[in-house]
Amino acid sequence: MTYCVAIALEEGLVFTSDSRTNAGVDRVSTYSKMHTFGKDGDRQFVLLTSGNLATTQAVLDRLRRDMAGDAKISLLSVGDIAEAADYVGSLSAKQQAKHGSGSGYEASFVVGGQIGRNKPAIVFVYPEGNHITTSADTPYLQVGESKYGKPILDRIITPETSLETAALCSLVSMDSTMRSNVTVGPPIEVSLYRRDSLLLEHRIRLDDDSPYLRELRKGWDERLKEAFRSLPPIAWARATEQPSGGQNAAYR
Amino acid sequence: MTYCVAIALEEGLVFTSDSRTNAGVDRVSTYSKMHTFGKDGDRQFVLLTSGNLATTQAVLDRLRRDMAGDAKISLLSVGDIAEAADYVGSLSAKQQAKHGSGSGYEASFVVGGQIGRNKPAIVFVYPEGNHITTSADTPYLQVGESKYGKPILDRIITPETSLETAALCSLVSMDSTMRSNVTVGPPIEVSLYRRDSLLLEHRIRLDDDSPYLRELRKGWDERLKEAFRSLPPIAWARATEQPSGGQNAAYR
Repeated sequence: MTYCVAIALEEGLVFTSDSRTNAGVDRVSTYSKMHTFGKDGDRQFVLLTSGNLATTQAVLDRLRRDMAGDAKISLLSVGDIAEAADYVGSLSAKQQAKHGSGSGYEASFVVGGQIGRNKPAIVFVYPEGNHITTSADTPYLQVGESKYGKPILDRIITPETSLETAALCSLVSMDSTMRSNVTVGPPIEVSLYRRDSLLLEHRIRLDDDSPYLRELRKGWDERLKEAFRSLPPIAWARATEQPSGGQNAAYR
Repeated sequence: MTYCVAIALEEGLVFTSDSRTNAGVDRVSTYSKMHTFGKDGDRQFVLLTSGNLATTQAVLDRLRRDMAGDAKISLLSVGDIAEAADYVGSLSAKQQAKHGSGSGYEASFVVGGQIGRNKPAIVFVYPEGNHITTSADTPYLQVGESKYGKPILDRIITPETSLETAALCSLVSMDSTMRSNVTVGPPIEVSLYRRDSLLLEHRIRLDDDSPYLRELRKGWDERLKEAFRSLPPIAWARATEQPSGGQNAAYR
């Protein structure tokens, strides 16, 4: 399984991904799902990958070859992020079709970044090659095991959130996911892209034994428990109490 | 969709359920999914229902008829909760088979309660009629849209948790689920059963406009945001910073 999240903010973009890959419970390995491409000062892309590893590796390889080899279309030639997503989607669909119509070859991608003075954007590319982007109401895209980590994103993230706060929120979201699904796991990678910088600001990798990741896990767990403890108790009397049946009621 | 949770504690049992039923997005209605049966001082049962509404209603009707009509097996005759679950599972499987083998008739149940001096227990009954119970490591059972509300249960609930705290936690879990899935909704019902009481202690119903539910939602949202705000910022320098490629790197 996979859990990745990409967030589009006024200040820029945040990308966070886990690195666990499994083909059956006894074939678990570690592969980065975050791939960066770009030309500093001109354009920057971050790709998050999910699904069949052979498909995603073939697509990434082709992206690199097209950039290096003066192909007619490459990440260096596309004019905006939607065009980049079309290109990635078409490579992915072609690669999947090579091996017949089985659903086992499916892969999906998040493509994000900025090209020149165009607005930074993130796009989710479906296995079929079509894609969707974010909105002001839903400024993030999730890939893979998305449910456990969604509530905290919904509460914290708005387009006005700062890059650093959104990155922290994505790590909390990742932590909730890892607690509940063992097939999502470290190393966790985080990239920050600041609007109009045309450079990747930070890219970090947090291993399982990273002191910061451990501290964050423990700190969040403690704070969440503290927050819960401070809630007012259930107001049984103020809620609508239901009749619970008389003595010896046969059923109610 | 449905979200129900049942929790088995040393002090007793907690049951929480939503009430939204939908057959397509344009046929949304409200039905209680919590049903109580028993004989005060002798035995108490709480059933939570999920799945095809015709199936669950038929099973509940049959349970009531069997209790009222001196059937050979009924909730009044079974010796423990596992036996009650076998009985409910067999009624459910029979009811589903009436309409052919289509999967649309499937239903599942949580059966919980106490019979005499037997240990209180909760059991999840699959559509096929087989069932599983809790363990000390996993003292709760969820039904339906379980992922959004699981992280808080995992952090708070242990067998030693008090009935009131577990009930509050189940409401927080329900709140996270309702925020993220519109097909889970109020009224929310909560029942408490205190071990060896052989009486249902509380049964409340919280409507959408319940002041307590509104207060809890707002209070939890504020506390969660406060907890998040108090987290230490990402230690970019302490994490393993990745090389982000040199100026004009064609790809990296």
